[in-house]
Amino acid sequence: MNDKNMECPFLIFSGRNSQTLSQKICDYLNKKLNFNVCGEINCENFSDGEIRVQIKNNVRGKEVFVIQSTNSPADNLLELLVIIDALKRASAEKITTIIPYFGYARQDRKTHGREPITAKLMANLIETAGANRVVCVDLHAGQIQGFFNIPMDDLKTVKLFAEQIKKDFTNFENIVVASPDAGGAKRAEKLASYMPGSSWVICYKNRHHDDKDNVSDFKILGEVKNKDVIIIDDVTSTFSTIKGSATEILNQGAKTVSAGIAHWACPNEITDKLKQGTNITTIYVTNTCPRSSYPISLNIAKEIDVSQLISETILRIVNHDSVSSLLE
Amino acid sequence: MNDKNMECPFLIFSGRNSQTLSQKICDYLNKKLNFNVCGEINCENFSDGEIRVQIKNNVRGKEVFVIQSTNSPADNLLELLVIIDALKRASAEKITTIIPYFGYARQDRKTHGREPITAKLMANLIETAGANRVVCVDLHAGQIQGFFNIPMDDLKTVKLFAEQIKKDFTNFENIVVASPDAGGAKRAEKLASYMPGSSWVICYKNRHHDDKDNVSDFKILGEVKNKDVIIIDDVTSTFSTIKGSATEILNQGAKTVSAGIAHWACPNEITDKLKQGTNITTIYVTNTCPRSSYPISLNIAKEIDVSQLISETILRIVNHDSVSSLLE
Amino acid sequence: MNDKNMECPFLIFSGRNSQTLSQKICDYLNKKLNFNVCGEINCENFSDGEIRVQIKNNVRGKEVFVIQSTNSPADNLLELLVIIDALKRASAEKITTIIPYFGYARQDRKTHGREPITAKLMANLIETAGANRVVCVDLHAGQIQGFFNIPMDDLKTVKLFAEQIKKDFTNFENIVVASPDAGGAKRAEKLASYMPGSSWVICYKNRHHDDKDNVSDFKILGEVKNKDVIIIDDVTSTFSTIKGSATEILNQGAKTVSAGIAHWACPNEITDKLKQGTNITTIYVTNTCPRSSYPISLNIAKEIDVSQLISETILRIVNHDSVSSLLE
Amino acid sequence: MNDKNMECPFLIFSGRNSQTLSQKICDYLNKKLNFNVCGEINCENFSDGEIRVQIKNNVRGKEVFVIQSTNSPADNLLELLVIIDALKRASAEKITTIIPYFGYARQDRKTHGREPITAKLMANLIETAGANRVVCVDLHAGQIQGFFNIPMDDLKTVKLFAEQIKKDFTNFENIVVASPDAGGAKRAEKLASYMPGSSWVICYKNRHHDDKDNVSDFKILGEVKNKDVIIIDDVTSTFSTIKGSATEILNQGAKTVSAGIAHWACPNEITDKLKQGTNITTIYVTNTCPRSSYPISLNIAKEIDVSQLISETILRIVNHDSVSSLLE
Amino acid sequence: MNDKNMECPFLIFSGRNSQTLSQKICDYLNKKLNFNVCGEINCENFSDGEIRVQIKNNVRGKEVFVIQSTNSPADNLLELLVIIDALKRASAEKITTIIPYFGYARQDRKTHGREPITAKLMANLIETAGANRVVCVDLHAGQIQGFFNIPMDDLKTVKLFAEQIKKDFTNFENIVVASPDAGGAKRAEKLASYMPGSSWVICYKNRHHDDKDNVSDFKILGEVKNKDVIIIDDVTSTFSTIKGSATEILNQGAKTVSAGIAHWACPNEITDKLKQGTNITTIYVTNTCPRSSYPISLNIAKEIDVSQLISETILRIVNHDSVSSLLE
Amino acid sequence: MNDKNMECPFLIFSGRNSQTLSQKICDYLNKKLNFNVCGEINCENFSDGEIRVQIKNNVRGKEVFVIQSTNSPADNLLELLVIIDALKRASAEKITTIIPYFGYARQDRKTHGREPITAKLMANLIETAGANRVVCVDLHAGQIQGFFNIPMDDLKTVKLFAEQIKKDFTNFENIVVASPDAGGAKRAEKLASYMPGSSWVICYKNRHHDDKDNVSDFKILGEVKNKDVIIIDDVTSTFSTIKGSATEILNQGAKTVSAGIAHWACPNEITDKLKQGTNITTIYVTNTCPRSSYPISLNIAKEIDVSQLISETILRIVNHDSVSSLLE
Repeated sequence: MNDKNMECPFLIFSGRNSQTLSQKICDYLNKKLNFNVCGEINCENFSDGEIRVQIKNNVRGKEVFVIQSTNSPADNLLELLVIIDALKRASAEKITTIIPYFGYARQDRKTHGREPITAKLMANLIETAGANRVVCVDLHAGQIQGFFNIPMDDLKTVKLFAEQIKKDFTNFENIVVASPDAGGAKRAEKLASYMPGSSWVICYKNRHHDDKDNVSDFKILGEVKNKDVIIIDDVTSTFSTIKGSATEILNQGAKTVSAGIAHWACPNEITDKLKQGTNITTIYVTNTCPRSSYPISLNIAKEIDVSQLISETILRIVNHDSVSSLLE
Repeated sequence: MNDKNMECPFLIFSGRNSQTLSQKICDYLNKKLNFNVCGEINCENFSDGEIRVQIKNNVRGKEVFVIQSTNSPADNLLELLVIIDALKRASAEKITTIIPYFGYARQDRKTHGREPITAKLMANLIETAGANRVVCVDLHAGQIQGFFNIPMDDLKTVKLFAEQIKKDFTNFENIVVASPDAGGAKRAEKLASYMPGSSWVICYKNRHHDDKDNVSDFKILGEVKNKDVIIIDDVTSTFSTIKGSATEILNQGAKTVSAGIAHWACPNEITDKLKQGTNITTIYVTNTCPRSSYPISLNIAKEIDVSQLISETILRIVNHDSVSSLLE
Repeated sequence: MNDKNMECPFLIFSGRNSQTLSQKICDYLNKKLNFNVCGEINCENFSDGEIRVQIKNNVRGKEVFVIQSTNSPADNLLELLVIIDALKRASAEKITTIIPYFGYARQDRKTHGREPITAKLMANLIETAGANRVVCVDLHAGQIQGFFNIPMDDLKTVKLFAEQIKKDFTNFENIVVASPDAGGAKRAEKLASYMPGSSWVICYKNRHHDDKDNVSDFKILGEVKNKDVIIIDDVTSTFSTIKGSATEILNQGAKTVSAGIAHWACPNEITDKLKQGTNITTIYVTNTCPRSSYPISLNIAKEIDVSQLISETILRIVNHDSVSSLLE
Repeated sequence: MNDKNMECPFLIFSGRNSQTLSQKICDYLNKKLNFNVCGEINCENFSDGEIRVQIKNNVRGKEVFVIQSTNSPADNLLELLVIIDALKRASAEKITTIIPYFGYARQDRKTHGREPITAKLMANLIETAGANRVVCVDLHAGQIQGFFNIPMDDLKTVKLFAEQIKKDFTNFENIVVASPDAGGAKRAEKLASYMPGSSWVICYKNRHHDDKDNVSDFKILGEVKNKDVIIIDDVTSTFSTIKGSATEILNQGAKTVSAGIAHWACPNEITDKLKQGTNITTIYVTNTCPRSSYPISLNIAKEIDVSQLISETILRIVNHDSVSSLLE
Repeated sequence: MNDKNMECPFLIFSGRNSQTLSQKICDYLNKKLNFNVCGEINCENFSDGEIRVQIKNNVRGKEVFVIQSTNSPADNLLELLVIIDALKRASAEKITTIIPYFGYARQDRKTHGREPITAKLMANLIETAGANRVVCVDLHAGQIQGFFNIPMDDLKTVKLFAEQIKKDFTNFENIVVASPDAGGAKRAEKLASYMPGSSWVICYKNRHHDDKDNVSDFKILGEVKNKDVIIIDDVTSTFSTIKGSATEILNQGAKTVSAGIAHWACPNEITDKLKQGTNITTIYVTNTCPRSSYPISLNIAKEIDVSQLISETILRIVNHDSVSSLLE
Repeated sequence: MNDKNMECPFLIFSGRNSQTLSQKICDYLNKKLNFNVCGEINCENFSDGEIRVQIKNNVRGKEVFVIQSTNSPADNLLELLVIIDALKRASAEKITTIIPYFGYARQDRKTHGREPITAKLMANLIETAGANRVVCVDLHAGQIQGFFNIPMDDLKTVKLFAEQIKKDFTNFENIVVASPDAGGAKRAEKLASYMPGSSWVICYKNRHHDDKDNVSDFKILGEVKNKDVIIIDDVTSTFSTIKGSATEILNQGAKTVSAGIAHWACPNEITDKLKQGTNITTIYVTNTCPRSSYPISLNIAKEIDVSQLISETILRIVNHDSVSSLLE
């Protein structure tokens, strides 16, 4: 009815917790599409701390994307929910929520009586606010997809990690991927499978159930002697397990120890300590969690950039192309 | 089947944002009932800031109450939702959520295009988490009750304010209740109705719609000369409107100006400034919002304690007695 | 797949309670768009009074609008719900419900124990039937938007009233807008702000809470002497408050008293009485409620036509343009 | 906690459309239980016709029953929904809705394109308002039970009809039960099975699909000569089909023709005509629909009272006894 | 954004229980549209019998159709639900579920206490899985449409039956359509109405309610002597009622007896027995239920093919044309 | 109101797929409680295979438990859903669904594009049918708890396995628990922790991602020489991975190989083959899955009986005692 040719058919909005990453994504897409896909949004706090949101672009009948990592504090989550509510009430056609780092993902089951399943609560809150589809990066457990009734894509970064590591450690046969605990065995096996000739091991604490003293020995299932070891984990919030594992691995004769972490959720104090020296050669870390920007300032850190992966996912969603083909 | 005579038939849990008030409520009820109604709950933060909750009491088949004000930051809200989720999954029979100060209540309608209705979002989040009933104190707008599909009680404090003011200002005919804006006219009229002989006025800014300069004059609808004026509001987060109104009211010849505020949502910096002196005689404020504990340290502040009101409401809910009769 | 060029991309259906207004809207749009936007619908009653509805146009995959005011009797509401059900089951793509006068809006909160919140019930019924979006005119309280989980637009008529009044009373400085009670103070302030130089006042009953005799004095907060007073209200169902206020305002020396009412919900008997003479100079009233057509027959009434406002809203919704821009 | 011995454990509320029947039910139960089970409720209309409801008894934690037939006008339905909403918000424990005559039951499927399924809409509205269980009498189609997700009991009256008819027509072999159309064949067969020796027939119009003139002959499948014929139907709103059938049946040599109707939904004009004389010997009709009280004034009508059936159902529900055993 | 001209705008997927019928539908549409509308899907069973599904075509943003009859065993139903889940999570735009034979349709109401309403459960399961619209053929009861909140089309085959029968029995006046019980009277009347001059009858068992011996006589309401009788039913799972009726009808002097069955749900053992000879001249049966393919191998069976009816329905849904017009 | 002293306050119903286990549970509880807790239910199949269910006990207002494993074929699942529907419509107060073996649990996330998440679908179907709480045994992944919005208890059997193994292999230091793949590492570590001195290993296939030939070597992370190895898994449906692993482990010098399997989902053909001789010393298997009864007939199998664990869980639920305390 009216000429809309000049307008972009979709818009990307960013919460305040993911602005650097979102800017990269918009830059990539603006250049590729020759459109301005970047939506404008007013997020600010009232003097008592309450969040106030206003969408600046008309979104009636539009497909929109909201990008926000939901690491703590909870204001990041609430800001995301409020933006979704505003978009819904402004009659956006379809709201895809992109959560590069899905906070609370580790609380995904009851391990003791009377615990919440906070990751499921998160999923319910996001659906309740009005999201129509969710995109995440490297979920802690694939099962979290099943917490949602709406479609969800889980973008895997293992390939991006493998590509960077293969550039840095050219002798694959000497690489050993280490999981810091039994639960991460599959992740280690997967990464190793991308580097022909490499192997993998599991670190664990030998703790017996009836042991009253709760003493535990550090153990490694597999061989690390003279190897270039890469400890791999999806998220760390204290770095202490990785640091402890690194020390023990070196004790057992490894040549070097590096670490690959999808989501860097450590507070800055912990990152600070790393500046004072560490026995870890390189830390590979993605830019999904805004806190990740900080360790990158360390000279031992290398950023695995996920912005192109997310950008191409957005394009496929908009064009109704297959997202799974992107991941394989 | 088994003897449960010695056990309390209900339990009260408190989030970390309302512990002082909850303690008062438990003390009151423990004394009155000769039971320990106080539930134990573990709320703590992981090193990356994520909240971790564990309910310590068995709640299967029990009626439970959770008390938490939801003023910002959003961690207060999220903690409440996580506690509700844990109670629901622990098979509590009925979960009544007591929210002494319902944060975000002022974002209860769209005033411009593409705004959220965050108060409604709050209601949806609380229902989604699993609450079966909600109790609030002095809601910003009574209509917020209609944001919920579950039963909700809104405990009014006007009577508590009137009782305290009547003790302090014995010459009712000299009292003028002032609303700081047109929207609060009804609240002022209501409080005045409790003090025979008193009157009420409205302060407003005379701002014209087409006025390009956006200059506005302070105006008072009604007479304040030589009067003891009580500015009344449900919530303040900056105190600036009240302070400005007080100055103008004194300029127009009032004898004294006091303020009655249900929910004190001001950050501490603002409360601090009041210590440096103010033209306000007394600030009446309830203890619904934990921030309220701070102004109480000022020598000009008087606390209106709502703990007994909430306690009696809990008792009526447990005993299936009428709550409305308590309020009339 | 098949040529649909000649077909209108949306259709407007009217319930039997809003046919005059709907016809005006269709006429406006048919002329502007050169399409026939007017859908045909069979609404009739069986001999026992049950409503029977059949949609005559194919609506598969179409955007449709249903216009019906929901003033009592409840058959108006039920007819609307039945039409929505029929459209939903006939696979309409998107159903926007336009409710020029949203009945039961005044029952929007519990004022005593064990009352319903009928306005919220209305919202739930309309969502349950299958509406995807709602448009109303001058809602009693903006918060009712939050009763819905679907997007809702509240079209304000204050500007239309101001335009007409400014034509009739050219000396703005002499205009005083009066609210008939404390709750309407904001509405009065808002209308006055459109007429530079005008002022506003509040009428109220001076009734004290402890007063056993329940005697009350009529009071006016502000000055009306020699003024042209416009009593403003969103809805009246008895006209008695306005009539009473008019008498008192004239007693206090006003030059003239007029009334501006968004929704005329009075039964005909009440409108009839006005024919026998009244001290009110002009009644401004919109055509949202079909009952409004009756007072218009009075020589003192002037209709504020909302059909163009609704038509332009429909156009913006269809074209995915901003509705809020229309209102500012 | 407090002594509740003296209080009735459940309460019955009646909407204004079923007060006579409800009174009978309360009388029966009060006498049997020695309690006052009758709840008090304020239902009135504002001057503009809007319904206003207030529950007078405290219902917190109580099991409650609401009785209201939902024949047109829709105010009967809306009043029921508003009462349910008020009970829900007043924290009633369980709300059983008793709908003696379920209005709109005949609109239970689409017979043409773009029709609503109003009976399903009714079910959705009642669930949305907050009913926990529904009890109906002689539903038009048993499948309507499946329109609800909540438990529903359909109380059959065929036995009550059979008992009365067997008193009046002692020679069972001469009784022929007639269905006025093919759809009611099963109902006729069922009633006949209660009267050993009786038989049944079907009346129908012999109308051919391709017949342009739409001429149709009245036909009877089966034999009526010299028989006492009872035309049976669940509901009539015009009485015309039954009257027409009666004439034809007499033409074909029947001795007498009577009619048994569960729900009398005819407007009074139609009942009036019957006073001017009819060829029908007796009309058996239940008191489910308030309109039924009128034909009872005719000397040819006999009331089949359902109040004891409903009362015993209530008792079984309250005592957690089987309702189905009551029906067999 | 990308050229999609060459791609089909919709895709049809078939579960393993309806592959023959689906292939016919795809062939018809492929030929008519010159597109390949046939989607590819991997359905297989793991060694423990669990079903595994994978959609092979990209369906993001596409309109899709799934065809599967849900006769027992339940794996047919579960496979359908799993396919819908996969399509939903793969971001299909709209999922229309075509269920040629809707299993469990006869359990559509409670006939005794403590029975399920399995047909309603089916509807809930299909909606829960994520279907947006349902198409069925010859539903057992039209009311089942109301078990769904989503739009549902019930394709009637009576016309297809009439067309075939009219070819085979040219002397319409000699045709008598017979219902095997009282409940099917309407169906018999309907079919007869398509054949001018034909008549219809009802078979029933004369069983009395109080009869302790439960002896029952076979009866026919109406005349069959020297007639060509067509027993009509929507579904048979034992053929025993029809076979028994046929014998009795022939005993009462009918010339020939044939049968018309919409859904052939008999296990193969029963079909086998028919091979040993039967007194039934012709069995008319549609191809909705895969079991129907078997009796077709009998020389007395004639297939009523529904593939074109379903194909044209799909086309109308895709093109947003009226489906009801197809049926009239 | 009536004397219910003699009646059991709860009832246990069993679907046809779990009757042996349910009988054990009822026997245990009947003996312990001196009540008959065993509910009667009619489950049968119509001739066309459709399931027919009728509950024989009155369940109004009762707490009920339904026990049914949901291994394929899907009729087991559907029978469970139908029973739940029947109990819900019969007004049971609370329905706890006990699913000893939760079928389809391994389809708990998307591993490729366009796959379903069937385990989540299962959860949705069970909630839709009307379950109020779920109890499972040894869920494949703890996260499946989060697929439900209702409370769910996951009963762990690791302790039962450990107790039996410790009786059979008294030299703990010689025990090595083996996971058949990387994903089961945690399970192996957990079981080992119950046997002080034991260790654990992981079997895996060394398969490289870019390897075109898809050749893979069997590898063991850790040492098995001269050890008594217990391969542990939660479920097996082919036994082939375990059998293959056993051979390789023996090749690498293990003394003996046994297997511990929570859920035996193998078809009988596979169990049959084991009779022809195997290199596995003992197979430990629970009785959750009815198929498990078969291997027990093998002389190498030992049953780990879960009936007491489930019985005590039921008791705790009924008595509102903590279930988690049972598990620790």
